[in-house]
Amino acid sequence: MSEPQISEQGALVLFSGGQDSTACLAWALERYARVETVGFDYGQRHAVELEARRAVRRRIAEAFPAWAARLGPDHELDLTAFGAIGETALTADRAIEVTERGLPSTFVPGRNLVFLTYAAALADRRGLKALVGGMCETDYSGYPDCRRDTLDAMQSALNLGMEQDFRIETPLMRLTKAQTWALAKALGGEALVAITVEDSHTCYLGDRTPHDWGKGCGACPACELRARGWAEWTAAGQAALAS
Amino acid sequence: MSEPQISEQGALVLFSGGQDSTACLAWALERYARVETVGFDYGQRHAVELEARRAVRRRIAEAFPAWAARLGPDHELDLTAFGAIGETALTADRAIEVTERGLPSTFVPGRNLVFLTYAAALADRRGLKALVGGMCETDYSGYPDCRRDTLDAMQSALNLGMEQDFRIETPLMRLTKAQTWALAKALGGEALVAITVEDSHTCYLGDRTPHDWGKGCGACPACELRARGWAEWTAAGQAALAS
Repeated sequence: MSEPQISEQGALVLFSGGQDSTACLAWALERYARVETVGFDYGQRHAVELEARRAVRRRIAEAFPAWAARLGPDHELDLTAFGAIGETALTADRAIEVTERGLPSTFVPGRNLVFLTYAAALADRRGLKALVGGMCETDYSGYPDCRRDTLDAMQSALNLGMEQDFRIETPLMRLTKAQTWALAKALGGEALVAITVEDSHTCYLGDRTPHDWGKGCGACPACELRARGWAEWTAAGQAALAS
Repeated sequence: MSEPQISEQGALVLFSGGQDSTACLAWALERYARVETVGFDYGQRHAVELEARRAVRRRIAEAFPAWAARLGPDHELDLTAFGAIGETALTADRAIEVTERGLPSTFVPGRNLVFLTYAAALADRRGLKALVGGMCETDYSGYPDCRRDTLDAMQSALNLGMEQDFRIETPLMRLTKAQTWALAKALGGEALVAITVEDSHTCYLGDRTPHDWGKGCGACPACELRARGWAEWTAAGQAALAS
């Protein structure tokens, strides 16, 4: 990878402490002079994600002094009330639709739109211009709020509604999970790969059983996706990111 | 006003219990076969707004049997965490900008974008298609998230992000406050005007001192706007809404 220019503008990274947002944090630290992180507590896996956020930030700061100088505070915002919309009774018609689409009845749509609106309000106060998130069309085609056209419309709404000039940046949008491992290595070498394996957290069940690709139950969809990406990447000899 | 067609679709009214959202509720009840309401607790004037919401809904149901048959449940969502972003420290540069723009340092931008995202997630679960809000360009030119172009972008983001076909309807967008009084009278006659005066709540201070135009402190910007609209409307002989 060619060395990117360091922008004097600041970035706010939507940072859950997972594999994807760890790669996004490194990507932003490579590009922006001032980087802050925000995490959302929406009532799921809260304690384990909070611990992963703290551990990844701490180890990145220890391993990469140039990045440590750019890394600003972490913010945590409470979104349990948004999660609670999932508890609202479905109408009878809607219940049938949800079943047909294969969604769990407590699924609340538009989560990324809420994350981005909160992040933008926070970025407004903190004077940060880039909103960096790990949304990805490649592996998660089922989530329409991860798609780039949704995010383009959201960027317009945020900029019109807040009289701002935010950019929603999604470095993983077109990457496979194997390519996300390759991106981590390109940005931070073996050290960042090790931090991602040992400290980031993705497992839906909050399990921290160690594997070569990370810690997790190994069986939930998030673990399966992560393990498959690792297997592809290692089978390819931990190749650099195909451009 | 000509009699509108009743749509079999449902509507969710963003309902704070104020003058504007009372008019919006009546407007929706005149048009939709099923109408639910949603209020947001963002840590300001909560108790008095909650009481206004309940009183307005109860009195409308008592006075208008046809509307009572269409009026579904009220929902309340907790947005105190969004309000709390106002407590986040401003950077020094941003503090100067905020002062220059004349905004209070605890002002959180984009409030209506958050309201709409939560409302859309709730409407998705409840099978409601219209999101009705009292946003208005006429009297509140200072709030960019009330403008129709912002709401058009937000409607696109919500529909793309939730694979939905919501419409954000803003019946007050081009009305003055005098015209909002006229709309209340056109929709519900003297009875709705009386409910608005006696039970709706707009005052920023939560004051309930009675006046001919409603209850409030009479001095805050919200009371001034409301009183001025009332004065204009009564000076015009409580004329019908100019079309």
